[in-house]
Amino acid sequence: MMDHSLLEKKIKEKDIVALSKAITMNESSIIEDNIVIDRIIANNTHALDQSIVISISGIPGVGKSSFINVLGEFLHRKNLSIAVFSIDPSSELSQGSILGDKTRMTELSRLDHVFIRPSPSSNRLGGVGINTHNNIELAKIAGYDIILIESVGVGQSETVVKQLSDIFLLLTMPSSGDELQGIKKGIMEMADFFIIHKADGALKIAAEQSQKDIEAALHMTRTEDLENRIFRFSSVEKIGLETIWDALKNYAAALKKENKLIPRRRQQRAYWAEESYKNIILSHFIAKHKLEFDQLNAKILNGSYVKLDEILALVTND
Amino acid sequence: MMDHSLLEKKIKEKDIVALSKAITMNESSIIEDNIVIDRIIANNTHALDQSIVISISGIPGVGKSSFINVLGEFLHRKNLSIAVFSIDPSSELSQGSILGDKTRMTELSRLDHVFIRPSPSSNRLGGVGINTHNNIELAKIAGYDIILIESVGVGQSETVVKQLSDIFLLLTMPSSGDELQGIKKGIMEMADFFIIHKADGALKIAAEQSQKDIEAALHMTRTEDLENRIFRFSSVEKIGLETIWDALKNYAAALKKENKLIPRRRQQRAYWAEESYKNIILSHFIAKHKLEFDQLNAKILNGSYVKLDEILALVTND
Repeated sequence: MMDHSLLEKKIKEKDIVALSKAITMNESSIIEDNIVIDRIIANNTHALDQSIVISISGIPGVGKSSFINVLGEFLHRKNLSIAVFSIDPSSELSQGSILGDKTRMTELSRLDHVFIRPSPSSNRLGGVGINTHNNIELAKIAGYDIILIESVGVGQSETVVKQLSDIFLLLTMPSSGDELQGIKKGIMEMADFFIIHKADGALKIAAEQSQKDIEAALHMTRTEDLENRIFRFSSVEKIGLETIWDALKNYAAALKKENKLIPRRRQQRAYWAEESYKNIILSHFIAKHKLEFDQLNAKILNGSYVKLDEILALVTND
Repeated sequence: MMDHSLLEKKIKEKDIVALSKAITMNESSIIEDNIVIDRIIANNTHALDQSIVISISGIPGVGKSSFINVLGEFLHRKNLSIAVFSIDPSSELSQGSILGDKTRMTELSRLDHVFIRPSPSSNRLGGVGINTHNNIELAKIAGYDIILIESVGVGQSETVVKQLSDIFLLLTMPSSGDELQGIKKGIMEMADFFIIHKADGALKIAAEQSQKDIEAALHMTRTEDLENRIFRFSSVEKIGLETIWDALKNYAAALKKENKLIPRRRQQRAYWAEESYKNIILSHFIAKHKLEFDQLNAKILNGSYVKLDEILALVTND
């Protein structure tokens, strides 16, 4: 077993094996492992505010992996180190897309100073992403300049994404105005940037229309200035990435200048701590009353109706 | 305030106002309201196994509402009564799609013996769907023959959908084989039926290819016989709905005949009861230790790191 101060030292040296090991310990169901990671993070809070965390969300098929591949290569050419996390809550029975994580982001995965961590292999109590915040903290301690988070970002997970990142980038596809209903209000309100992806070939004109539709929809729902927030892009043609990157950088710089970044990150830490409390409370309580819960469960499976009062009595008489 | 036995009586008479009121009480954050509904359901367990619950899932833009509109009208012509629930976990800030629930399913909403309940207006502790199971039970007590559940069914919510329905129907769009990666393995493993929607006009040929791709993908991952489980359909042309409906009916009949339906529903009830325990445990514990949790939260927002040990001590010393 590796000494923990050695593990900490090696993470800070950007040792990929050490970082991977730490992430595995963070995602472990053994509380002692979690505590080791918690202490490493507590020792390095000074290092947590250097990196920029950008989430890239969008529905399946929008091309998140291609975009991250292209963006990652672009940032790598600027000598920035990159960590990529996938928090796609894709599957209960078995994780990942049909084609699998390994065949995607091929070019990016070959580069130095690039760390790619696919989705965790199983869902954990309380849902996706509870440990992901600490995974990101570990990547910050390892000194990665840019941390990219890939997420399907549809439904519940859009909140998760917002609570993990400094910048929330929504990828959409060129489509007719009618199909704008596919983009939910919530995500329209939460996203900081909009990229109309696949804006090439036959979809070029549809992409222009999509941009206008999104601008019009945002105009109805949001009050802030949204100049330089909506872009068309093609991961095939790769034109205009410098402009998008400038906009992202300027946005992050403005957040810092207006003193919004640190409070937001603290609020995020508080959000994830609360999720962590909840997990601990549930594990503790359910373990303590395992016998009673198993009995209630057996009653239901035998066809009886367990009344709410019975459950309330069990909890309040604890 | 309405008398509860009167409320129960009126629900059983399929009184839409009473059913709506009961659903609101079920979704209420006032525990006394929840208990009233729980008792009404406990009184009517004999009525819970009559209806068939079909979930219709698919990514935003696939045309779930149009499909439900067409399917609902079709079932209505067969003199079946229909309740439709939407459990789209679409938005944290404000619920629903940009075009809104009210403008969709127009034709269906005008018919008699059709009850439509849009998404709940706010997210609740523990995520989407915890109360939805009881909402469905209420619709069963009201005697609706067919209960349709519309859900985005991407990510975490696919499990929720599976735990709510007898039949899980996945809507997909015609697309090239390459884009099959958009359909996650998990949902491919969980869905009972696959409808390649929008199989009309320019997409007709792509739909045929999609069907072959899905058949091939399923062949790799699933062992059971999937004949009569994959269909192409157009909600514009509306051809072949009788065939799809026959397949759904036969599937439900086979589940009953093989004694799978009742055990599955009991397992679902146990699943939702567990979600309910968890909510009660969390509410109780967090209320009991509100002061300590508020202090920890304040510490984090002030920039301190709260160690996992502190939280563990608070919970285990309870």
